[in-house]
Amino acid sequence: MEFISGISKKEALEIGEILAGDYEGKNIKIRGAVHTIRDMGDVAFLVLRKREGLVQCVYEEGRSQFSLKELKEGDTVEADGTYQTEDRAPNGFELRLDHVRILSEPAEPMPLPIAKWKLNTSLEAKLNNRAVALRNLKERAVFRIQEGITRGFRDFLYGEGFTEIHTPKLGAKSAEGGANLFKLEYFHHPAILQQSPQFYKQMMVGVFDRVFETAPVFRAEKHNTKRHLNEYTSLDLEMGYIDDFTDIMAMETGFLQYTMRLLRLEYAREIKLLDLTLPDVERIPAVRFDEAKQKVSEKYDRAIRNPYDLEPEEEQLIGRYFKEECGSDFVFVTHYPSKKRPFYAMDDPEDETYTLSFDLLYKGLEITTGGQRIHDYHMLLEKIAKRGMETEGMEHYLSAFRYGMPPHGGLGIGLERLTMQLIGEENVREATLFPRDLSRLEP
Amino acid sequence: MEFISGISKKEALEIGEILAGDYEGKNIKIRGAVHTIRDMGDVAFLVLRKREGLVQCVYEEGRSQFSLKELKEGDTVEADGTYQTEDRAPNGFELRLDHVRILSEPAEPMPLPIAKWKLNTSLEAKLNNRAVALRNLKERAVFRIQEGITRGFRDFLYGEGFTEIHTPKLGAKSAEGGANLFKLEYFHHPAILQQSPQFYKQMMVGVFDRVFETAPVFRAEKHNTKRHLNEYTSLDLEMGYIDDFTDIMAMETGFLQYTMRLLRLEYAREIKLLDLTLPDVERIPAVRFDEAKQKVSEKYDRAIRNPYDLEPEEEQLIGRYFKEECGSDFVFVTHYPSKKRPFYAMDDPEDETYTLSFDLLYKGLEITTGGQRIHDYHMLLEKIAKRGMETEGMEHYLSAFRYGMPPHGGLGIGLERLTMQLIGEENVREATLFPRDLSRLEP
Repeated sequence: MEFISGISKKEALEIGEILAGDYEGKNIKIRGAVHTIRDMGDVAFLVLRKREGLVQCVYEEGRSQFSLKELKEGDTVEADGTYQTEDRAPNGFELRLDHVRILSEPAEPMPLPIAKWKLNTSLEAKLNNRAVALRNLKERAVFRIQEGITRGFRDFLYGEGFTEIHTPKLGAKSAEGGANLFKLEYFHHPAILQQSPQFYKQMMVGVFDRVFETAPVFRAEKHNTKRHLNEYTSLDLEMGYIDDFTDIMAMETGFLQYTMRLLRLEYAREIKLLDLTLPDVERIPAVRFDEAKQKVSEKYDRAIRNPYDLEPEEEQLIGRYFKEECGSDFVFVTHYPSKKRPFYAMDDPEDETYTLSFDLLYKGLEITTGGQRIHDYHMLLEKIAKRGMETEGMEHYLSAFRYGMPPHGGLGIGLERLTMQLIGEENVREATLFPRDLSRLEP
Repeated sequence: MEFISGISKKEALEIGEILAGDYEGKNIKIRGAVHTIRDMGDVAFLVLRKREGLVQCVYEEGRSQFSLKELKEGDTVEADGTYQTEDRAPNGFELRLDHVRILSEPAEPMPLPIAKWKLNTSLEAKLNNRAVALRNLKERAVFRIQEGITRGFRDFLYGEGFTEIHTPKLGAKSAEGGANLFKLEYFHHPAILQQSPQFYKQMMVGVFDRVFETAPVFRAEKHNTKRHLNEYTSLDLEMGYIDDFTDIMAMETGFLQYTMRLLRLEYAREIKLLDLTLPDVERIPAVRFDEAKQKVSEKYDRAIRNPYDLEPEEEQLIGRYFKEECGSDFVFVTHYPSKKRPFYAMDDPEDETYTLSFDLLYKGLEITTGGQRIHDYHMLLEKIAKRGMETEGMEHYLSAFRYGMPPHGGLGIGLERLTMQLIGEENVREATLFPRDLSRLEP
């Protein structure tokens, strides 16, 4: 019988290990994929792709004990050779090769020039060849940044006393009504895919006071735009015992501050690779919905068509206004009209036309919707009745309120949209590993 | 215009803040839910439930400036009073109350005796009243432990150079064939819910070398047992450049070691509350499938009915065997028969009847399936053909292999099963926030 005792150090090194050690003139072993081969005659550069970046390996005729001809792009190999400082090489070193052992081989040449600095390929082609296109360093860096955002969200909230929850995506009824829901049959019962963890996270505020979830949500919206997805990752939080809805905005600002620091510290490589400038989030302006419309209308000479809704172009102009006036990429727009918010939103007691809610715009795009929720059972029933809605299917949700809930509020952040704005892309699909839209269910 | 500058310290304190400070004889303010009220005449104990535990507050006639009669279980309140050390109180202190301000009120009395130490209620009743039942301290502690497991998984893997990915749950085809899939219509196209991120995580090994995901999976299995769910959270990892499949087992052992340490450090409160003894995971025995069957057959005098499958009772006996023989709650069972593993499993070159794969049993229950995968494009096609399967719908998956993939392997851990075994429950639903089974789609 054998025993497994956990991970042990491997002979083959990672880039971080190499950079942390003193290997000048020493023989080291690495593994990686052949990213590109540049044959100069007597010498050749064999560039390996590893998870932390590229390693330049030098084939020298006479020294290297293998035939360069045996190698091709897409092979994965184990190489050993002598470490040598070389300022012009990625990460400042290269490997003078002794041996290369092939671990695996592709069946065909790459369909995309992934070794190029920038993959000048259409989005459509990139999505159709996702597993290959992402081998390009800049393409994959996007999803490292996305990891940093999710990680920042969770780590910040753990520190603030939030509990992580996993709520079901299959359900009998959803938070925001019957439209835009994917429907399916669940053991002979009608079921839906949740478009939000809204009901569940609110119910769990009564248990844990503060909760969050990072999980997929599903929206059967027939929008075919650059900013809509039919499945996306939602960063959700809900918190009890708030004084008012500015507590929620403060928490989101705290998350952004924490995350920008985390990215700066732990994702510097990707920030450099993508040439990103992280936004200043030390303070984020907040403006009322009606005021924002007014300001934009005046400054950009644009008539207000509908006082109770924001058109995408108006959102962009609000973003532009606060960039110009305050130098901020972000702006909280508060007090959305009640009729544009779901029934559970808390109306402003000073003017019930508006709610104690907000959106966060980032470079003119809505990346968050949040606000205070109704916590009183009777008030919730009244609001439902006032809207002419049925309580059928909401019994469990309402039950949490029947037995008492603290004043609370929360928000949902679209991970892909936040990533897209941070990396400065025009299409949310660029920031989605495997996008799902009206015409795309594969890969 | 206002600015939001992030979170600021609140007047009302959390338990951790109180315990970290020096408040003896000082006036402090806290917020919480009225967990229980014990009226002793001249004094009364008002116990508040907060996210970190209970706070005992003392109402004293003459001193306290409010009427006890105004309060009831389920109210949420803000209380202020004088901090006083009191060894018999939870967390070693109590609050001699001056004022209590009601923040919210329930509409009805609690349907379950949540303030009891142990909620002696049927599982059915607990699930039907989930949002209330979880307000019991022991019930909710289970999901704090579950948080610790998920957090341990991610943090350990970040440290080991894994990248977190978010793969789509809606798809055109799934990894392990047509049975047990939930089907739905996706904009007039047939779609399914993924029963595993298998294909996606493998494809992403070609990009990031090491990836993980913590996300829901969906299985339309008609099992109605204590250990099956139709939706659960899968902790998945996949890693490239492995020497062999023991690298995967080593990584899982490392995760368990890291996580037990994390639980001990950060979840001590819940471990105490649930009276848990964390398992020793310093070394985990590994035994071949055929040997394990043989050993169990001999020791417990049980005939081997099917040499190519493990019955649940056999799994339990294997668990018992290694507990008795090695003192281990965990055992890796390796080299599962090829016919019981999916097509992508790597067959053992020394005997193709078996695969280079494993399950991890914890107290006799399978909590993980993993192993080395086929990485060679042609070998994969051959295996598919040999099984009489079609490549239709697998084009994108196969394409990743066509363009080269490193040797790799991975695993999937059922989060709820791992939690259930750790807390010593008999039914996986006890470790699931909102279980989905054959008869349960709500709450």
